[in-house]
Amino acid sequence: MLLHWSPRSPFVRKVMVFAHETGLAERITTTRTPVAMLKPHLDLMAENPLSKIPTLRLEDGSVLYDSYVICEYLDTLQDGPRLIPAEGPARFTELRRHALATGFLDLLILWRNERDRAQPLPALMDAFAVKTQAALAAVEAEIDAVPRGLAQFTLAVLGSYLDFRFADLDWRAGCPRFAAFHAEFEKRPSMQATLVTEG
Amino acid sequence: MLLHWSPRSPFVRKVMVFAHETGLAERITTTRTPVAMLKPHLDLMAENPLSKIPTLRLEDGSVLYDSYVICEYLDTLQDGPRLIPAEGPARFTELRRHALATGFLDLLILWRNERDRAQPLPALMDAFAVKTQAALAAVEAEIDAVPRGLAQFTLAVLGSYLDFRFADLDWRAGCPRFAAFHAEFEKRPSMQATLVTEG
Repeated sequence: MLLHWSPRSPFVRKVMVFAHETGLAERITTTRTPVAMLKPHLDLMAENPLSKIPTLRLEDGSVLYDSYVICEYLDTLQDGPRLIPAEGPARFTELRRHALATGFLDLLILWRNERDRAQPLPALMDAFAVKTQAALAAVEAEIDAVPRGLAQFTLAVLGSYLDFRFADLDWRAGCPRFAAFHAEFEKRPSMQATLVTEG
Repeated sequence: MLLHWSPRSPFVRKVMVFAHETGLAERITTTRTPVAMLKPHLDLMAENPLSKIPTLRLEDGSVLYDSYVICEYLDTLQDGPRLIPAEGPARFTELRRHALATGFLDLLILWRNERDRAQPLPALMDAFAVKTQAALAAVEAEIDAVPRGLAQFTLAVLGSYLDFRFADLDWRAGCPRFAAFHAEFEKRPSMQATLVTEG
């Protein structure tokens, strides 16, 4: 399998953490495919017209995206316990928590884009800040109940993304449980193998 | 079930089309919850800290989001054939097509926000236009192969959203098959029951 990859995309990292946690990382070849909001990647767009990564090409030539779809596919290839529960309340709790973590990342990426503009809209910057505090509080409230699985991995990547792009936020100050979870989880080989680099 | 709803959100409409197509619409009570990028909705944020709709409150008080998660949940409540295939290649094709349609909607919403700013970034406006053409071409290439299901419903909502917010694009010009699909699908009761209104 070929994964369109870059070292700093949190959504790519989520997929790679999932692959490492499931022992599938060796089956994935990565190709560096930098994407940016301002620069559509024309080669990538032949496989994913939205010009987004991660995008995964399977051995039969078919293509999967987005990061959720790729992780669910990887979950079907592995032999261990499912990391996205197959059904019932456990599945929907997992998916809702994953949507929280993923939507939070989407918000942070938009916030960063706004922050970098010549004239950020003050009301929009304020809205991002308010939602971020609410999302952090929601993560803090339930982090200790999150089992090993896709949502947990995404929350770990989220913590690292906050460190990487929003160090000023000092997110740990109001989130001792999330901070403790993150400190422990980031020691895992899956996180160590996928460290964000400036390179 | 209580759905945080607004008449113009394409993601809300997707959920409501799904509910109508599965005979579940009568089990959903809607409450009008207007959200905007610039104005976090504080009451909604108690249930979804990201301040996004659709957000669904179940009878036991638990909450589901985003629109994909809600549709998958609704699919488990209905008696007909699954509208999101449960497994195998059919599932991943459905999910990838759904990701195309949903990611396309995300792109259009960002494009619209950019267009409405005092000083849109030309490079960003160009990037949205390029991706939109690529995404339309991708939809056109496979629309005739898309079976009844979540991806199909989302593509129908997408066509209507293009009409509503991007009439200038004249998307039908290069997409005769997508246009024919849309013309037929929009006659369905599920689409007629969820018409976008300015109200």
